[in-house]
Amino acid sequence: MGALHLALVHGPVVNKRGDEITTAVTGLNVHDIARAAATYGVSGYHLVTPLEPQQRLVERIMAHWREGHGAAYNPTRKTALDLVRVAPTLEDAVADVTRREGAAPRLVATSARPQPGVKPVTYAGLRRDLAADPRPVLLVFGTGWGLTAAALAKVDALLPPLKGPGDYNHLPVRAAVAVVLDRLRGDGETASGP
Amino acid sequence: MGALHLALVHGPVVNKRGDEITTAVTGLNVHDIARAAATYGVSGYHLVTPLEPQQRLVERIMAHWREGHGAAYNPTRKTALDLVRVAPTLEDAVADVTRREGAAPRLVATSARPQPGVKPVTYAGLRRDLAADPRPVLLVFGTGWGLTAAALAKVDALLPPLKGPGDYNHLPVRAAVAVVLDRLRGDGETASGP
Repeated sequence: MGALHLALVHGPVVNKRGDEITTAVTGLNVHDIARAAATYGVSGYHLVTPLEPQQRLVERIMAHWREGHGAAYNPTRKTALDLVRVAPTLEDAVADVTRREGAAPRLVATSARPQPGVKPVTYAGLRRDLAADPRPVLLVFGTGWGLTAAALAKVDALLPPLKGPGDYNHLPVRAAVAVVLDRLRGDGETASGP
Repeated sequence: MGALHLALVHGPVVNKRGDEITTAVTGLNVHDIARAAATYGVSGYHLVTPLEPQQRLVERIMAHWREGHGAAYNPTRKTALDLVRVAPTLEDAVADVTRREGAAPRLVATSARPQPGVKPVTYAGLRRDLAADPRPVLLVFGTGWGLTAAALAKVDALLPPLKGPGDYNHLPVRAAVAVVLDRLRGDGETASGP
């Protein structure tokens, strides 16, 4: 089974108008996504931000729950936050995964728009790959209005956007990450299950 | 197709020791769960709290995004918050669903512990029921350490807890709600799909 990592990119990403921006790291996304990562057997949760003060903010949150008062108060938080890594760029996160896993990861993002030259993959297909293929996978999520075209051009495969029965599609990124992980690594008690 | 509603119970629920408590409503759960509800075609999101100041807090949040400055600034927020209702008790939420849908809902909760006299149901089974049966369903989630035994004894069916590949199981309730909705009402592009 291939190791599964995830990256949450804060910069560069795009805003509503398509301009490149850097979003603020929110403590909430650190905690919520770390807990989802721990639940679904993710090997590393990489927060990507080019801003040094933001990198230090994440390190302070991690220190509190991993070594400080929080570690004793809430050990399940510690287990989750042990998965958190900070990287200045997506390339640094890829290098970290490569070093830890001994192989370069396949990069997979979700996007509503097809990308020229990037292969689409279904959730079912990626789930099968993860179970059968030892190569690590790095799932890449963007904050704001999503990854830049330059970042999307670098991924190896694109998952379709999450959809319900209607057209409304504005899940918070922390909810979207949990749903994607459930589709890829949930216990499989799904629509087509028993 | 039966209408799907959800209730998030803030009180009474149990704490870590099993004592009955009332938790605080968090604005975050109002927003995140409303957006997941809108994405997955939920007809109503009922916040249950016996505390009047907390009921008024939810109403103020709703007014801001539905009628105030927020409605113009972020219309997708308005669509989501239009689903929010406040109820002092779970029974009041059930009465509201019954009035709106013209039939009493089937109450379904998730629980790690079997409840004497309460039928277990799988996600796949409930998904099929929702597609085939016109009877409304009210999914009931507890905050804190979950619903009281008295509340669990009143539900019609219990879903199994969400699980990943390991033993860690501490999803935030706002993530758990999104995953459950995806299993019940997602576009079905899941593990056993194409």
